[in-house]
Amino acid sequence: MINVLFSAQPQNWADYETPLRTAFADAGLDVNLSQDHPPETVDYIVFAPNGPVTDFRPFTTTKAVMSLWAGVETVVDNATLTQPLARMVDDGLTRGMVEWVTGHSLRHHLGMDTHIHGQDGAWRNSSYPPLASDRPVTIMGLGALGQACGQMLHLLGFPVTGWSRSPKSVQNIHCLHGDDGLAAALRDAQIVILLLPQTPETENLLNAETLGLLARGAFVINPGRGPLIDDAALLAALDSGQVQHATLDVFRTEPLPKDHAYWAHPHVTVTPHIASTTRPETAARVIAKNIVRGEQGQPFLHLVDRKLGY
Amino acid sequence: MINVLFSAQPQNWADYETPLRTAFADAGLDVNLSQDHPPETVDYIVFAPNGPVTDFRPFTTTKAVMSLWAGVETVVDNATLTQPLARMVDDGLTRGMVEWVTGHSLRHHLGMDTHIHGQDGAWRNSSYPPLASDRPVTIMGLGALGQACGQMLHLLGFPVTGWSRSPKSVQNIHCLHGDDGLAAALRDAQIVILLLPQTPETENLLNAETLGLLARGAFVINPGRGPLIDDAALLAALDSGQVQHATLDVFRTEPLPKDHAYWAHPHVTVTPHIASTTRPETAARVIAKNIVRGEQGQPFLHLVDRKLGY
Repeated sequence: MINVLFSAQPQNWADYETPLRTAFADAGLDVNLSQDHPPETVDYIVFAPNGPVTDFRPFTTTKAVMSLWAGVETVVDNATLTQPLARMVDDGLTRGMVEWVTGHSLRHHLGMDTHIHGQDGAWRNSSYPPLASDRPVTIMGLGALGQACGQMLHLLGFPVTGWSRSPKSVQNIHCLHGDDGLAAALRDAQIVILLLPQTPETENLLNAETLGLLARGAFVINPGRGPLIDDAALLAALDSGQVQHATLDVFRTEPLPKDHAYWAHPHVTVTPHIASTTRPETAARVIAKNIVRGEQGQPFLHLVDRKLGY
Repeated sequence: MINVLFSAQPQNWADYETPLRTAFADAGLDVNLSQDHPPETVDYIVFAPNGPVTDFRPFTTTKAVMSLWAGVETVVDNATLTQPLARMVDDGLTRGMVEWVTGHSLRHHLGMDTHIHGQDGAWRNSSYPPLASDRPVTIMGLGALGQACGQMLHLLGFPVTGWSRSPKSVQNIHCLHGDDGLAAALRDAQIVILLLPQTPETENLLNAETLGLLARGAFVINPGRGPLIDDAALLAALDSGQVQHATLDVFRTEPLPKDHAYWAHPHVTVTPHIASTTRPETAARVIAKNIVRGEQGQPFLHLVDRKLGY
């Protein structure tokens, strides 16, 4: 019998209990799933950073902590966490992100807002957008999400550049990396998509200097993490026309305060951290698979490098 | 020397002259391109249905009429046209249509308008859309445009059904056809995309009865031809909630009159016949290729079946 503790918000329990039980049974695991096992009896923790467990020291025999979230920046520095920590890499989350990123990229590429807002009887047919093949896109971050979004944008015809901290080689994506590759990745980009993890190195990556490298009238799309952007610099770039529009899903403070300048800016679309989410059915299968690996003595998938922070 | 007459609007001449001359030269054709050859000297007509030529009888030695438009319903019944007529099947037009259809399908799928309109400080994060894999899409029309859009929507994960007049078999698309397949194609569809040619058989294809087959709250996207829809029936379906939103790019009368109910309806987005257009650079190459075939005695590509009307 494997004891799995579920430590997340009460509403998560309602969403996840059945999918987890189903996934464990399908994987042939004999699991006792509960929200309140005694800590010293817990084999695995299914974990959300906003759940009840914040001190991992009592979990003396726990083999791994399985995050339900892809972003682990709020737990990675927890000094009591000595157990292996796995990020969520969920096919459902990835697919949802591809849909959201592709949709908003096309929305800006096609200039949809002109028509969505302009239902006033004026027949605005004077110009066509360029084809996607003439609209360079840069994706900041080439993890599972960045790569998947890049492939779909490539299939639509966009020339796709990707930037990551360390060198990567990904088919169909012009890959650049590190400090040396940063300026080349951003220079003349017409759409920039932020899918980097939040680390001390990525904070304010998009700032006055880097925003200035983009093509004039570029679009910024941020489904990654709020601190990737220097907010004051972005607002200035929006005011000057250097950035034509920003669609932002994540913020330093969430919910974004009602009096934040982003809400009022005519060239900003705020979306409420909905770009994508872990999907219980697919995420439960990822967790079951990782527990099977742990029980068989295989290395866990999607382990977080505590030094890198993701 | 091959005499090619350019018969379209004056602004088309500005867009097409250089691309056509380049494409002819690249194809090794010795062409005299002009807007006013004497009719009896013309070998080929590059033709827009809204251009000056309406009587084809004086063009006694003309080998083919090459339409710049994909839709030929306004010329196909011209009794003076006895020469072969080729439709435009332009890679640029196809790619533009894929971008527009994919963009608006994702816009409705993701519920973007809620956020585009809702920049009022309210954090509306209560629900996620289903994944595309749970959102069935039906494409009415499986010509070059319908097939290309279907493939892209399939790659995004949507289950795609396609309907055509005559039987077709297309990978990744559940193909239905004819009167017998119509109800099955529309039943429970959540997004319907109209890419049929305009013929007597397709007029009012989307009417009170067929709209009633869709899933409640479906989305209708029409980048095809205005008369495919019974406008009164669509407005009634929008009022009842049977159709949640319609994005319409084509209309019985264009520009759509300022007092038309579509402009005022809160659940209709009118776009001004901009979904896609023939792109001069790619279209010029298609025309050059077809002239080469004609000069070599090969059958023309994309010939219109005058009885079918497309």
